[in-house]
Amino acid sequence: MDIKEIFDDYEKFLKKEITVEGWIRKHRKQKSMGFIDLSDGTCLERLSLTYSSDTKDFCEVQKLHIGSSVRVTGTIVATPDRTQKFELVCKEIILLGDCPEDYPLQPKAHSREFFRKEAYLRPRAELFQAVFRVRSVLSIAIHDYFQSHGFLYLHAPILTASDGEGAGEMFQVTTLDLDRIKESGEVNYEDDFFGKKVGLCVTAQLEGEAFAQAFKKIYTFGPTFRADKSHTPYHVAEFWHIEPEVAFCDLDGIMEIAEELVKYVIKYCLEHAKSEMKYLDKYVEPGLIEKLKKVSDCEFKRVTYKECIDILIKSKKKFEFTPKYGIDIAKEHEKYLCEYFDCPFFLTMWPKELKSFYMKQMDDGTVAGADLELPGIGEVFGMSEREVDYDKLVSRMKELDMKLEDYEWYIKLRKYGTCKRSGFGIGFERLLMYITGIDNIRDVCAFPRTHKSCEF
Amino acid sequence: MDIKEIFDDYEKFLKKEITVEGWIRKHRKQKSMGFIDLSDGTCLERLSLTYSSDTKDFCEVQKLHIGSSVRVTGTIVATPDRTQKFELVCKEIILLGDCPEDYPLQPKAHSREFFRKEAYLRPRAELFQAVFRVRSVLSIAIHDYFQSHGFLYLHAPILTASDGEGAGEMFQVTTLDLDRIKESGEVNYEDDFFGKKVGLCVTAQLEGEAFAQAFKKIYTFGPTFRADKSHTPYHVAEFWHIEPEVAFCDLDGIMEIAEELVKYVIKYCLEHAKSEMKYLDKYVEPGLIEKLKKVSDCEFKRVTYKECIDILIKSKKKFEFTPKYGIDIAKEHEKYLCEYFDCPFFLTMWPKELKSFYMKQMDDGTVAGADLELPGIGEVFGMSEREVDYDKLVSRMKELDMKLEDYEWYIKLRKYGTCKRSGFGIGFERLLMYITGIDNIRDVCAFPRTHKSCEF
Repeated sequence: MDIKEIFDDYEKFLKKEITVEGWIRKHRKQKSMGFIDLSDGTCLERLSLTYSSDTKDFCEVQKLHIGSSVRVTGTIVATPDRTQKFELVCKEIILLGDCPEDYPLQPKAHSREFFRKEAYLRPRAELFQAVFRVRSVLSIAIHDYFQSHGFLYLHAPILTASDGEGAGEMFQVTTLDLDRIKESGEVNYEDDFFGKKVGLCVTAQLEGEAFAQAFKKIYTFGPTFRADKSHTPYHVAEFWHIEPEVAFCDLDGIMEIAEELVKYVIKYCLEHAKSEMKYLDKYVEPGLIEKLKKVSDCEFKRVTYKECIDILIKSKKKFEFTPKYGIDIAKEHEKYLCEYFDCPFFLTMWPKELKSFYMKQMDDGTVAGADLELPGIGEVFGMSEREVDYDKLVSRMKELDMKLEDYEWYIKLRKYGTCKRSGFGIGFERLLMYITGIDNIRDVCAFPRTHKSCEF
Repeated sequence: MDIKEIFDDYEKFLKKEITVEGWIRKHRKQKSMGFIDLSDGTCLERLSLTYSSDTKDFCEVQKLHIGSSVRVTGTIVATPDRTQKFELVCKEIILLGDCPEDYPLQPKAHSREFFRKEAYLRPRAELFQAVFRVRSVLSIAIHDYFQSHGFLYLHAPILTASDGEGAGEMFQVTTLDLDRIKESGEVNYEDDFFGKKVGLCVTAQLEGEAFAQAFKKIYTFGPTFRADKSHTPYHVAEFWHIEPEVAFCDLDGIMEIAEELVKYVIKYCLEHAKSEMKYLDKYVEPGLIEKLKKVSDCEFKRVTYKECIDILIKSKKKFEFTPKYGIDIAKEHEKYLCEYFDCPFFLTMWPKELKSFYMKQMDDGTVAGADLELPGIGEVFGMSEREVDYDKLVSRMKELDMKLEDYEWYIKLRKYGTCKRSGFGIGFERLLMYITGIDNIRDVCAFPRTHKSCEF
């Protein structure tokens, strides 16, 4: 049985004999008895085992190592005076898989850097048990929100010939033999698997728009790749991306959805990962739960870029980058604005030069796009109404020297029954960092991929 | 509002004025009135609109093209004598986005090949509305099954340096400039993004095993890539893969989970995509629903490879490949066995030479692996207990000339608290083909990627 079942309702098992399997996380020995913390990973909690000379093969049991897997049979007994209200009094503990003493995860404090080097073992540590459980719960929260609101889940393609962001950060995917290119001095894409140059998607938005124009409300949730060399706590080359796209929806509508989604998934995690969130609140970011509750209870403000610049100018604060109309909002500005408003807010209506080609152009030189800014972290993700006018889109793409022929079908969506539509793109890991309080993205990815690092 | 809301409970809207947005799928004109089928993609059903000379701008409305997007205001009126029990009597139909007459999806029969060439438009067609809705529903069914059974959802890495199947079908991922290699005559992986040769994952099993040894029950559900040049209706280079891995679980245990999962997701689709499944049963595979119900109601048999070979030999049937112990089970054999048993069955205990290196080796030269065979399609996916003995795994890998240093951490999982474990890998699209009755995998992928084809 799962240890989780016991923690869900231990009274059901009192005085009953049960068998569980799991791994030894702690082992404290006394002369005639011993105590073991057993984890099977089905919940964050560890089952307290006690054994004594009545337990079969007592001497062998005393030799059991940290990290070993065991099968345990015993009786659940109440311990009303202790933090854990019950324990398993063991009749028999059978060693299944030993764990020699060179096991890296000994029960002492390890640094996050140490854990990263042992990424195949770190899911066994309590911290990562909490983080990856919340990761799983948050994923389901996202599906749950969209499904209960009638969205279609789309698996957009990962392999693609078009650079959806036009940012040139694509990885190339090939079956050409690089050594042969070296020798022959020839690159012939006709011999490549797809017969042309292909890469990994940087966004699913283009395909998302095609499906929104058929299903009205769609979302994607899949991996996305950017060959970004930034060595920061926020950048990985492979991340999961949530990209909804909604037809007949304007910027106001998509901001409403974004606000609802963020609140929904926060509440979902607090509800469905209680122990994990408490653990993170206690050991990772004190005040985490309060911070999240505040966000999920308040109303998000909507402020234009112009208003924000005015506030920054009026502040008379010395910024490294002097605020003025036309400049990008830097981290220092975000920080000031987040403190100023003291609540989540949408920063809307940006000068078009600062945003992507596909955003709806307004008459005053702005685009109908917005960034969601959360206190304590700043921008978490961006959204926009799309440019659905054929001519305006084409002229903007020409201004930016984009190759129109690479986007032929995307542009043609504006020709056949076009309609207003909007969408956003959430970097899943950044949202997860905000919800877990973990400050380095490498620690919320099972096996993070960053510049110069692709281990395991 | 969504058209789905009306079909969910039309009586709620009778005689009420409502506004909907959507696309014109059919348009039949008479002298003083007209009929439009309107789809907004929120459900398979199309709303019947009627307009007449009472409708605003009647003459303009008569000119509306197929495929155009419109906003419609009108009153829901009962039509008890017709198939559709209600219609929208229009007060106003406003054109939002026109669709010129060169629109490829005119209301006539199109071949599947034609649709593939217009993959960015085909989700608008009824057939693909059904297929991609079932795809979304089936995805959620899978999450639902695993979540309700306490599995952790793991996002395994897509970029990897190890070939998990050892089959050599990996795509390479690089930021090296191929033209520069051509000119310089040098391939220097130190200059590549990750500082080494990296490719796209062919399986998430290795990472799955690491997480199962921490969380007991995990599953992955993400894209997987194989540079397989097969031009068949079953092969794509990019597909979604479901890979659960369960600690303390043997082959019998994982077969039970596989059987439960298949039955669960079939029932879920029949329940949550009723109209779509009816449509597919009517237009794609007559008898589809009955076939699926039979599978979800019966008990799956378990038959060993040896028993199957004996049955094939005893059949005295002339096969192209003569059945004998040691040969692989060919399609013709599967077909015979499926008819012989007339129910889903697990084909278990294969000679180790026919299966992967990571399967648990038995003393008699077989491995504890099984394939699930379904009537009418044959093998749908395989499963196995894993080889968790350090020495046995290493010696098998050496027999197969595998580079042990590429799998160092995977092998070490057998050193630190190893335990019995099992898992399987479902090709999502093949399961989807079985459930939708669609016979070409290109028609269940939004934008299929196959040898020499990567469009959109």
